[in-house]
Amino acid sequence: MTPVCPAIAPLDDALTAALQRKIDGKTKPPGALGRLESLALQLGRVQQRLDPQLVDPRVYIFAGDHGLALEGVSAYPQEVTWQMVANFLAGGAAVNALARTSGMAVRIVDAGVAHTFAAAPGLVDAKIAPGTRSSLHEPAMTLGQAVAALQAGVALMQAAGDEGCTVVALGEMGIANTSAAALLLHKLAGVPMDQAAGRGTGLEGAGLARKQALLARAAARTGPLDVLGALTEYGGFEIAMMAGAMLGAASRRMLVLVDGFIAGSAMLVAARLAPAVLDYAVFAHQSAEAGHAAMLRALDAKPLLALDMRLGEGTGAVLAYGLVRAAAAFLNDMASFEVAGVSGRA
Amino acid sequence: MTPVCPAIAPLDDALTAALQRKIDGKTKPPGALGRLESLALQLGRVQQRLDPQLVDPRVYIFAGDHGLALEGVSAYPQEVTWQMVANFLAGGAAVNALARTSGMAVRIVDAGVAHTFAAAPGLVDAKIAPGTRSSLHEPAMTLGQAVAALQAGVALMQAAGDEGCTVVALGEMGIANTSAAALLLHKLAGVPMDQAAGRGTGLEGAGLARKQALLARAAARTGPLDVLGALTEYGGFEIAMMAGAMLGAASRRMLVLVDGFIAGSAMLVAARLAPAVLDYAVFAHQSAEAGHAAMLRALDAKPLLALDMRLGEGTGAVLAYGLVRAAAAFLNDMASFEVAGVSGRA
Repeated sequence: MTPVCPAIAPLDDALTAALQRKIDGKTKPPGALGRLESLALQLGRVQQRLDPQLVDPRVYIFAGDHGLALEGVSAYPQEVTWQMVANFLAGGAAVNALARTSGMAVRIVDAGVAHTFAAAPGLVDAKIAPGTRSSLHEPAMTLGQAVAALQAGVALMQAAGDEGCTVVALGEMGIANTSAAALLLHKLAGVPMDQAAGRGTGLEGAGLARKQALLARAAARTGPLDVLGALTEYGGFEIAMMAGAMLGAASRRMLVLVDGFIAGSAMLVAARLAPAVLDYAVFAHQSAEAGHAAMLRALDAKPLLALDMRLGEGTGAVLAYGLVRAAAAFLNDMASFEVAGVSGRA
Repeated sequence: MTPVCPAIAPLDDALTAALQRKIDGKTKPPGALGRLESLALQLGRVQQRLDPQLVDPRVYIFAGDHGLALEGVSAYPQEVTWQMVANFLAGGAAVNALARTSGMAVRIVDAGVAHTFAAAPGLVDAKIAPGTRSSLHEPAMTLGQAVAALQAGVALMQAAGDEGCTVVALGEMGIANTSAAALLLHKLAGVPMDQAAGRGTGLEGAGLARKQALLARAAARTGPLDVLGALTEYGGFEIAMMAGAMLGAASRRMLVLVDGFIAGSAMLVAARLAPAVLDYAVFAHQSAEAGHAAMLRALDAKPLLALDMRLGEGTGAVLAYGLVRAAAAFLNDMASFEVAGVSGRA
């Protein structure tokens, strides 16, 4: 049986010095490529090679519905989840447009959408149930469902790794899932509920106040929770499966590009199950969602981009992939001082 | 004769409302793509079309030598300028590696390197003189040279525009050119000399103190200066030609990706000559060079990236081109709510 939490090796330093020498030997002042240099170092350590390769890059979009959506915590109706899945499949969403410019393949994972899809190229049927229950009143899912979702995510990424894929961007779609993510942030990292809950897809004024009041009630329904408890009580199927995917990807030594607020909540779950998963993670961007800064602090993460985006779908992760490509390109393709005949420091 | 300052039309609002409607009709919450949305709007206004196209994207690297290099203001010897030009031509520098991943063509412009190059593919011979004079003691160039460099930059970009190129990234190479840029920042924007001068390619301790003392002496050699006066007294041939290139590109309605600190000093010059050039500019990144933050403030510019880079060569501008591609891709390729059959806000 696929484990809930596969073995993940923390990155070792076997190649760190050799990688750093290679980076410093390139025709540029030491450190002048800034964060591209630390990305290159991380990529080499993840792949355990001096010439890491980006093979078969993919973005996975995990989709799921939420009982909370029916309580009025979102500016959009629940049906938008399946409609957007159809949009992803047709290639018309933002993530499709961005993935095309980045050379990434798009996969959509039905982790628990309240809709029946016909089989389609790029669609992975991994539905746990047609949406979670409302965590305002009861646990969002059973422990068995949480475990099944984690396992499905692990298996999906291990299969991708076995197919040769070395880098994945992980994103999501699910009306009301900023609410689930905010509740997880509150329960797992202790961030006050009113700082964790934000505008989501664009709530304002009374709508935001209503969302915050509802989430405060939902949070008050339970006391302290462990990670599986929090996931069961407040998670989403797409969040649980994404957490599993992070674990599975790391177990296959793949680089994991973490998108925004909801993907961050999945990483909170994953990192509680196996802290070494963080060694394989690249935090793509600081989103405009209010709780994201606190979430990144809880993860001790420094995102690459800050472009006031708040869309999800993996759009930030796909953008950040461009920086990963640049990091690999300079590490693999730049000349050294020696080869290029360029003088060093005076 | 090529004008020093060609006619540049400030962006008008003829298409602004239609572009914004198109952006807001895409399948995403309004504003959810953050700065990609403002980039898309700018690109549409620059090209005066609802479906702006990125055609024949190029990075131009302007190279020049500086009399100041012989005073000991850099961690690297002057010969590194021509050696790096050779490295660019051989495809081995950081900008080459990054441009390859971005699909940009690389052109190197010899604006005034103290070396004679054989003709080579990708090399533009526009040499004004083999390096400037030392602005510690005398004007770096004559007014005639400054004007010739500006004109050459204008002509180069107008020719590129006439060839169909719609977007350029502008970078530079020139040992000691952070010193020239710092002096221009001081003289043109009134930034105190000790805040304008930074580590450049990596000076520390005594080296940095020496650079700052020398630049303070150089700055004290003159009083208040107008833009051509400052360029003549303290500029570099690559900076002057890049300033001209910015003007020329804007005059052909091309989008201009401005790299880091030295490219910023060229934009300071260009914007004094024709403020409308700023409408066509995208500020690529906040570099790690100390004076860059003050320079961006002087230009009222908000950079897209902040990755602790401090290399020049156009590397930051080439990275930012990935974001421009993403902006154009979402504007041109994403489905609308209507076409995709996705519900709007509840």
